[in-house]
Amino acid sequence: MAMLPRLSALKAAGRRCFSCTTQVLSQETPVGFVGLGNMGGHMARNLLKKGYPVIAFDVSKDALSTLKNDGAVVAESPAEVAANVSRLVSMLPASAEVQEVYGGKKGILSTVKKGTLLLDSSTIDPSVSQQVAALAEKQGATFMDSPVSGGVNAARDGILTFMVGGPEASFAQAKALLDNMGKNVVYCGPVGTGQAAKICNNMLLAISMIGTSETMNLGIRLGLDPKLLAKILNMSSGRCWSSEVYNPVPGVVPGVPSSNDYKGGFGSALMAKDLGLAQNAATNTKSPTPLGSLAHQIYRTMCNQGYSGKDFSSAFLFLQEQDKKK
Amino acid sequence: MAMLPRLSALKAAGRRCFSCTTQVLSQETPVGFVGLGNMGGHMARNLLKKGYPVIAFDVSKDALSTLKNDGAVVAESPAEVAANVSRLVSMLPASAEVQEVYGGKKGILSTVKKGTLLLDSSTIDPSVSQQVAALAEKQGATFMDSPVSGGVNAARDGILTFMVGGPEASFAQAKALLDNMGKNVVYCGPVGTGQAAKICNNMLLAISMIGTSETMNLGIRLGLDPKLLAKILNMSSGRCWSSEVYNPVPGVVPGVPSSNDYKGGFGSALMAKDLGLAQNAATNTKSPTPLGSLAHQIYRTMCNQGYSGKDFSSAFLFLQEQDKKK
Amino acid sequence: MAMLPRLSALKAAGRRCFSCTTQVLSQETPVGFVGLGNMGGHMARNLLKKGYPVIAFDVSKDALSTLKNDGAVVAESPAEVAANVSRLVSMLPASAEVQEVYGGKKGILSTVKKGTLLLDSSTIDPSVSQQVAALAEKQGATFMDSPVSGGVNAARDGILTFMVGGPEASFAQAKALLDNMGKNVVYCGPVGTGQAAKICNNMLLAISMIGTSETMNLGIRLGLDPKLLAKILNMSSGRCWSSEVYNPVPGVVPGVPSSNDYKGGFGSALMAKDLGLAQNAATNTKSPTPLGSLAHQIYRTMCNQGYSGKDFSSAFLFLQEQDKKK
Amino acid sequence: MAMLPRLSALKAAGRRCFSCTTQVLSQETPVGFVGLGNMGGHMARNLLKKGYPVIAFDVSKDALSTLKNDGAVVAESPAEVAANVSRLVSMLPASAEVQEVYGGKKGILSTVKKGTLLLDSSTIDPSVSQQVAALAEKQGATFMDSPVSGGVNAARDGILTFMVGGPEASFAQAKALLDNMGKNVVYCGPVGTGQAAKICNNMLLAISMIGTSETMNLGIRLGLDPKLLAKILNMSSGRCWSSEVYNPVPGVVPGVPSSNDYKGGFGSALMAKDLGLAQNAATNTKSPTPLGSLAHQIYRTMCNQGYSGKDFSSAFLFLQEQDKKK
Repeated sequence: MAMLPRLSALKAAGRRCFSCTTQVLSQETPVGFVGLGNMGGHMARNLLKKGYPVIAFDVSKDALSTLKNDGAVVAESPAEVAANVSRLVSMLPASAEVQEVYGGKKGILSTVKKGTLLLDSSTIDPSVSQQVAALAEKQGATFMDSPVSGGVNAARDGILTFMVGGPEASFAQAKALLDNMGKNVVYCGPVGTGQAAKICNNMLLAISMIGTSETMNLGIRLGLDPKLLAKILNMSSGRCWSSEVYNPVPGVVPGVPSSNDYKGGFGSALMAKDLGLAQNAATNTKSPTPLGSLAHQIYRTMCNQGYSGKDFSSAFLFLQEQDKKK
Repeated sequence: MAMLPRLSALKAAGRRCFSCTTQVLSQETPVGFVGLGNMGGHMARNLLKKGYPVIAFDVSKDALSTLKNDGAVVAESPAEVAANVSRLVSMLPASAEVQEVYGGKKGILSTVKKGTLLLDSSTIDPSVSQQVAALAEKQGATFMDSPVSGGVNAARDGILTFMVGGPEASFAQAKALLDNMGKNVVYCGPVGTGQAAKICNNMLLAISMIGTSETMNLGIRLGLDPKLLAKILNMSSGRCWSSEVYNPVPGVVPGVPSSNDYKGGFGSALMAKDLGLAQNAATNTKSPTPLGSLAHQIYRTMCNQGYSGKDFSSAFLFLQEQDKKK
Repeated sequence: MAMLPRLSALKAAGRRCFSCTTQVLSQETPVGFVGLGNMGGHMARNLLKKGYPVIAFDVSKDALSTLKNDGAVVAESPAEVAANVSRLVSMLPASAEVQEVYGGKKGILSTVKKGTLLLDSSTIDPSVSQQVAALAEKQGATFMDSPVSGGVNAARDGILTFMVGGPEASFAQAKALLDNMGKNVVYCGPVGTGQAAKICNNMLLAISMIGTSETMNLGIRLGLDPKLLAKILNMSSGRCWSSEVYNPVPGVVPGVPSSNDYKGGFGSALMAKDLGLAQNAATNTKSPTPLGSLAHQIYRTMCNQGYSGKDFSSAFLFLQEQDKKK
Repeated sequence: MAMLPRLSALKAAGRRCFSCTTQVLSQETPVGFVGLGNMGGHMARNLLKKGYPVIAFDVSKDALSTLKNDGAVVAESPAEVAANVSRLVSMLPASAEVQEVYGGKKGILSTVKKGTLLLDSSTIDPSVSQQVAALAEKQGATFMDSPVSGGVNAARDGILTFMVGGPEASFAQAKALLDNMGKNVVYCGPVGTGQAAKICNNMLLAISMIGTSETMNLGIRLGLDPKLLAKILNMSSGRCWSSEVYNPVPGVVPGVPSSNDYKGGFGSALMAKDLGLAQNAATNTKSPTPLGSLAHQIYRTMCNQGYSGKDFSSAFLFLQEQDKKK
């Protein structure tokens, strides 16, 4: 694979760093980035802003050329990125893309160098993270799963939370890099546990959100004022993030999607996807998840009824509607 | 009805008060109390401690004689209590008992005086509160529902939360009395809304508790440490009272029932009862409550499987068990 | 209460019958009928066709005058009907109407004669049937619950199924009358068991219908032809009335509502009502009904989304819809 | 790979057959069989009884030597079986075993000959059937999924139902072989649709069985005789295979597992497995399956509570239990 323009200089910088210490890579060492979508684009830009040279790839030419304008070097495949870096971040839509980007013909693992640190921030099935980690290990590279919580705005502002799974010995190095894109970087345990933490949180979030929506709707129909009901819940044992910070009833909490026609935020289709991952994990481990399973079905049904693009707090709207004309 | 011993003195005191103002009843005016169970006994005792003369009734002779030793005057029926007071608190097990104690042959409404304030702290169907309130109104009395949150210990320590429904004009008078038994007295709206607030809170609590139990169990099976998982949830959007304050996994939060073999606390059978009330209210108002409904079924099933007397956080235990021998 | 025109003749006929035997009332004895809606109108007309004199009441003047044209004598209240007959059928929308029509000021029980047989074909809460039966017994009358299965067409064609609860000694007399309006009259046990049988059947029907809808939809998305899938289910253990006789997928079974844009049949709102009764009964008896409970919630949600008036097999349509625009 | 003893004679017979026609293989041509468990052992024995030479493999030496005594030739790996036959049946526990037996190092696809017909009767994820079919096609072999309904007794008696997916052109040849082990062989469509039909049927069966269990339990608690209730359901729209043929209440239908302490039949753990496959398929195709999903969770919970080995109709027992001591 041909050396990329400008890369020889970048790599020289990196090598100088290695001469000081093999443990910590300086800010001058190039970082690979694969997947420049709504989240990944912002994340890569934050690395550039902090002074890291970035070598990037995406299937979208537009996404690539935007990042080039921001200062990145662009590559023609994941393999080309991997060939030129010692650490790499990926941010991809789903398990299938991760399998292809790492294990495919022009994939990362076809060129990855020994000792490379691979950080995958995609939200995928933990068992796929484990499979890719095993393949990476055969090549002498270290794969860690590092999914995020926080949406597009948190990605832009560099305040994501990263949940990281993989060898504890590599965590310090991972954290040093991820700190540039987030405000919390939490070590969760062996590879796959970052994903596990992510899908556990989102499953409980979905349950709480639908539960809050049902409760607010029932209370309103029983004659309670929604703001008063929210206040009572929040001083009692029914309190949860969804009732307190992100209440699904319009007008109860200012500035959240429910008060803006359920625009922005975290779409119901994305929640349905994460709940599908939770259900796969539950089936694989024979863990009963009755409410998580029903929450999955409700978001699935909401998507069919036209709520895919609305924030997931629109569960309230879905449950509240009455005798719509058909 | 014969005047009770000692009552003429008590009533004289009350009358003196009335001569000052008809709005506020002094601490010397006797208070009626019907229902001296685990909760009611403590509540009546707190009134006595604060210096209120109490005229009490319960179907249990033991409960009555205990309270007599603490200084109460005992009556032989709810009717006799009502005949001798201008304000009264009831604390009964369920809707049927409230209907009987108020509307029965020797019930409160058979002797209640005009202007009497009736405060029912039982947790019952809001539509039953409304029926009894309508009957009371015909007699010129004011019925308010004032169910509590907080368990037996909160009743003993006088730190209950009261959720009060009824005419706003009577709230100040109700609050003056209830303040002696609780630390929060919240006005919720028209009669029945106290019950509505109570069952809404408990429905969301049940959903959150089962949701937290499922999530913790899934995370543990996926390899996460329970304390770490709780920490991650509590700093993220999955956070709820059940994950943070009352975590259902033994050892995560010290001092809660899950760390004491699920003893004490709020029994699963009581939660099943409250969820049944929520379901009735939801059916009456045609409100969809898919998760609340399933939570009801799960607590119902747990009761059948032997969890009636265990704290409701034992949902974790129920879901976690694996391949028990039969 | 004034004797109705033509009634003296009718009653004379009835009395002649009583002089022969008190057990069996001849076809000449007048029959009371209260509730002339979609179902009741047809049922009363079938009695008229079979030669029974009918004395009828309904709150709708139109319904009453239609039946008058068909040969009935009309009364001005349920009380007036009851005063003039020794057997009576009622067909009312819900528990509240039954309580009013029987126990209200001008209700049946205010004038009912000793020995009268009261047959209530409404679908209501079994515990309400039991309450009304107890009140009737005090007046020396016999109340039996006799809800029906089969819809408007079966009512018109006189081929309903009646499920009858009440004293076994009165069943022969009840059957003799109900046989004129149905083809199956089944004795179920003590009062309330007719309702119990009805709501049990409809709960299982709702579960099977949603289950069949989910299954057909899943199979179609997995590449199976719907007719072939129905055939396989119907020769296997998945077979049920909903898959075989009333398949919810358009085109699989000719002549059913699914093949006619879900028009006609048994509306989703009526199914939601019956499932609400089942849930009340389940809560009262502490019976876990997880799928029945979820089926209730699904029909409740379908009503909110505009399916109230569509046949209950439109559960397939509801589940099948994909990414509707909003 | 060395020729197996006796195989040269068998193969000569096969070759003679091929010289007549390449479409139909005579009864003298050897058939491969991999997987000799509870089901597969009986199936292979039925082929032997019908006069087919069988070359078999299983990981259990005992299973292999039993079949050897019955007349089979035994091989040392799936690869050795495949090397010596032109048609082969596999019957394996789950997706992972199918992937290993076909795609593993000594797997069928490592030696399979062009034109071989591979019939997999395991119940697995339809997408795995499609993956293996694609690999087989690359080698010039034809893979068809052909899962069965009917249990161990049906396997022994040769009266299974086979649901077959794959190229329609190969169905006649598949049917000719499967007819020796079953009484119904149904063509379902492209590869994977056999599995689809199987999991669809079992999902609807699980829903109907739990639904019937809930309904019978509710009816009994409401005062109905179980036999009478079953009779009413079976003449009404609630009728299903579970209510009619395999009623879960002891004593209603003689000779089924519920009347034999839930012994024999189809274990709850196997039902939970099939429901897990249905959920994976539903998630992959974004099909909402609310009741199927809850049925999965209920069987999962039943397994945890000790019902794994009981027939799946023990859902009635699970729901019926009341206030067990713990």
